[in-house]
Amino acid sequence: MGEDMHQYPKLDEYIESIRPQFEERLAAFVEIPTVSMDPEHRADIDRGADLAVELLKEIGVTAEKAPTDGYPCVVGELIQDRRYQTVTIYNHLDVQPADPAEWQQEPFKFTKEGDRYGGRGTTDDKGPALTALYAVRYAVEQHIPLNFRFLWELEEEIGSPNFDSFLKSRAKTMKTNSVVISDTVWINRSQPAVPYGLRGLLTLTFTLETGTKDVHSGLTGGAARNPIGELCKLIDQCYDATTGRVKIPGFYEDVVPLKKEQLESFLASGFDLEHFCKAHGLKSLRSNDAATVIKAIMSRPTFEVHGITGGYVGAGVKTIVPYRAEAKISCRLVNDMKVDKTFKLIKKFVKAKNPDVQVIAHASSPPYLGQFEGKYADAAREAMRYAFGKTPAFTREGGTIGACTSMEKYLKVPLTFLGLSLPEHGYHAPNENYDWQQTCGGIKMFTRYFDIISRF
Amino acid sequence: MGEDMHQYPKLDEYIESIRPQFEERLAAFVEIPTVSMDPEHRADIDRGADLAVELLKEIGVTAEKAPTDGYPCVVGELIQDRRYQTVTIYNHLDVQPADPAEWQQEPFKFTKEGDRYGGRGTTDDKGPALTALYAVRYAVEQHIPLNFRFLWELEEEIGSPNFDSFLKSRAKTMKTNSVVISDTVWINRSQPAVPYGLRGLLTLTFTLETGTKDVHSGLTGGAARNPIGELCKLIDQCYDATTGRVKIPGFYEDVVPLKKEQLESFLASGFDLEHFCKAHGLKSLRSNDAATVIKAIMSRPTFEVHGITGGYVGAGVKTIVPYRAEAKISCRLVNDMKVDKTFKLIKKFVKAKNPDVQVIAHASSPPYLGQFEGKYADAAREAMRYAFGKTPAFTREGGTIGACTSMEKYLKVPLTFLGLSLPEHGYHAPNENYDWQQTCGGIKMFTRYFDIISRF
Repeated sequence: MGEDMHQYPKLDEYIESIRPQFEERLAAFVEIPTVSMDPEHRADIDRGADLAVELLKEIGVTAEKAPTDGYPCVVGELIQDRRYQTVTIYNHLDVQPADPAEWQQEPFKFTKEGDRYGGRGTTDDKGPALTALYAVRYAVEQHIPLNFRFLWELEEEIGSPNFDSFLKSRAKTMKTNSVVISDTVWINRSQPAVPYGLRGLLTLTFTLETGTKDVHSGLTGGAARNPIGELCKLIDQCYDATTGRVKIPGFYEDVVPLKKEQLESFLASGFDLEHFCKAHGLKSLRSNDAATVIKAIMSRPTFEVHGITGGYVGAGVKTIVPYRAEAKISCRLVNDMKVDKTFKLIKKFVKAKNPDVQVIAHASSPPYLGQFEGKYADAAREAMRYAFGKTPAFTREGGTIGACTSMEKYLKVPLTFLGLSLPEHGYHAPNENYDWQQTCGGIKMFTRYFDIISRF
Repeated sequence: MGEDMHQYPKLDEYIESIRPQFEERLAAFVEIPTVSMDPEHRADIDRGADLAVELLKEIGVTAEKAPTDGYPCVVGELIQDRRYQTVTIYNHLDVQPADPAEWQQEPFKFTKEGDRYGGRGTTDDKGPALTALYAVRYAVEQHIPLNFRFLWELEEEIGSPNFDSFLKSRAKTMKTNSVVISDTVWINRSQPAVPYGLRGLLTLTFTLETGTKDVHSGLTGGAARNPIGELCKLIDQCYDATTGRVKIPGFYEDVVPLKKEQLESFLASGFDLEHFCKAHGLKSLRSNDAATVIKAIMSRPTFEVHGITGGYVGAGVKTIVPYRAEAKISCRLVNDMKVDKTFKLIKKFVKAKNPDVQVIAHASSPPYLGQFEGKYADAAREAMRYAFGKTPAFTREGGTIGACTSMEKYLKVPLTFLGLSLPEHGYHAPNENYDWQQTCGGIKMFTRYFDIISRF
């Protein structure tokens, strides 16, 4: 370690020196509620993109707010020398919605308590985006021979519906040797993790309308169909909620079995059942076996119910028979499952069980499986080791980053995941936060990584 | 019929003569929004009760606004002679809430179009209450030898939470030989109906908490329990939503089988599947057989899901795993089912299937089954025939009037249901209305009924 610390002149001092700026910028970003899921935040998305362009320009990046068929994408380039290798840094600046009732602070107010930064978007993904940005600034100041491109998306949280066509049309002007994505979560603060795969996602709604208005359950109950009851039955036909096992025929057909060494690497991530439950506030799990749990998240597909609308949801019990119900469903997918094939399987199954249910596909993204070994994987290993003092575990993410498949397809280069979020950061949850420790380590990690790949 | 018309001197003239008063009084009542479900209408409930007392006094009734532990109850007596039989007339003056967006008129503005009276409460139950009142006035003027008591409740629409204890404490001062309740709905305008039973009601919540906050379904999905999924499974274990059949062992044990002549009487009510679906805006039913449908409503218990809270219910699909879900459930009960026994059966079943689910009982009311035959039933038959020209069908109500069981328990006398509402009156629905035809017929019906029972 001693030797390592001398490789990058005054890196610690640099990091300390930029802390006030970093916090000020992060605050500015967090306080723009760039909620891509809610059309009312359209203007905020634009303001967020404008701020991003401004920030990139400040450190010498040629940047623009590029239109897509949906929300804009911020693109930037900092070409030091055409002969250098080029790395593309992907982050996203849109955030999840936040219900103030569930938060202990205002979600879109930046807070600082010691080294902890609170607010929606701090860890997903504004904090990591700025961490990478300040590492680039240092790398450029230190003349690390590498060119940089930035791809800051504003539709990631809605499944990147326009990123694919956007990238397809721009890929020729975005030549790069690799992509680094900083939007993933470690398993344990004390053990860095580098994911090499992501689950895909297929989101769906099941809608059933059996009438035109809520009716009195005394006057009609027993004769009237109950759309919530029927959706409950259908959901139970689709999967066993106790075990999570999907009952739709063919669902698991294309799942590639996990190899022994891959499972061992998952288990080396510092995964701990108690810690996992505590971090996510889970009272119990479907299984108490760590290997079963980690496999379920990293390498198995799911069927999930996110909510059921319709009927009466106020205090007490209002005895109406609802006329309409909608279940919000998703499936996480793993290689080699296909989005279309899975959707068709589900739709066919639902139509056979309850022909009146409308099945509509919303955002989707195929699963991604990258390299477990090779020079980029080695560079990631060394960068994490350098910054955090431990060789990282190679894991897979249970989540989905829709943009990855598009980047793989059009940029045709390796993708590396250098995430900085921790389980306790409340990713997609109330009281989201990020912290200065991960910022410091992150800047070091990126610096080391840029240095290594500049020599490829 | 010719002979009948002469039994009551100048009854038609009397009815025509009181029409302006009747309309003026009904307007005054309708324009006081006595919405018991909304605490903001507390003062209106009081004003409604005051107006009722005033009105009763006008026709010589000794009346008072009697306090209960909730909203007051209006009680009155008109004792002509202690030796006479006494009848107690039950109505309620509180009304359902009304959402002006769903109405074609202002809900709490009385409107008159020809013989049709519009406004919340016109048919449920202010119109029928005034109809009975004007019949009492005529009966007294004609010296029909009968004493009258009035019980006008102001908490019926919230399940009569204080009526039982109120009546228990007052029953001794309310001696009566029978009760007549005018708060039920015919099946068809062209066929009078006299219900002789009501379903009971048991309302419940099933609550399951598997965590402390909503979490990301990428980070936890597959391992985390899903409380909505588990409640769906549980609900499907409780009943088959397609057929409505309850699967909880023992649920149907105490259901008294329907007799052939009882079903025939249900079918004689003018029940029509198409009309039923249209009236309630139902696109399809669990069965297309009229006898099955009418039995399901009038004489079979139900399991109903009114809503499921928890998770994401906004636009699109937010991929969280919810931490908590609550299902709003009710069962309509029929004789001889017991509220407590049914609750225990359900609770035991749920605990066996999913021990983490909390089962909580909310408002409840036992079923009521009165006389299909006997002197009061015969009096009701003859009164309806006299007033509307057709022998009524003896039906049962699918709904629940919580006060009935209390009156049976403490007054210990027969209850007779002489309802005047029609399906097209929009009972509990937008654009509620009542009409002058039912008022005229109703005054005649009550007059004849009072006359008959005065001779018991």
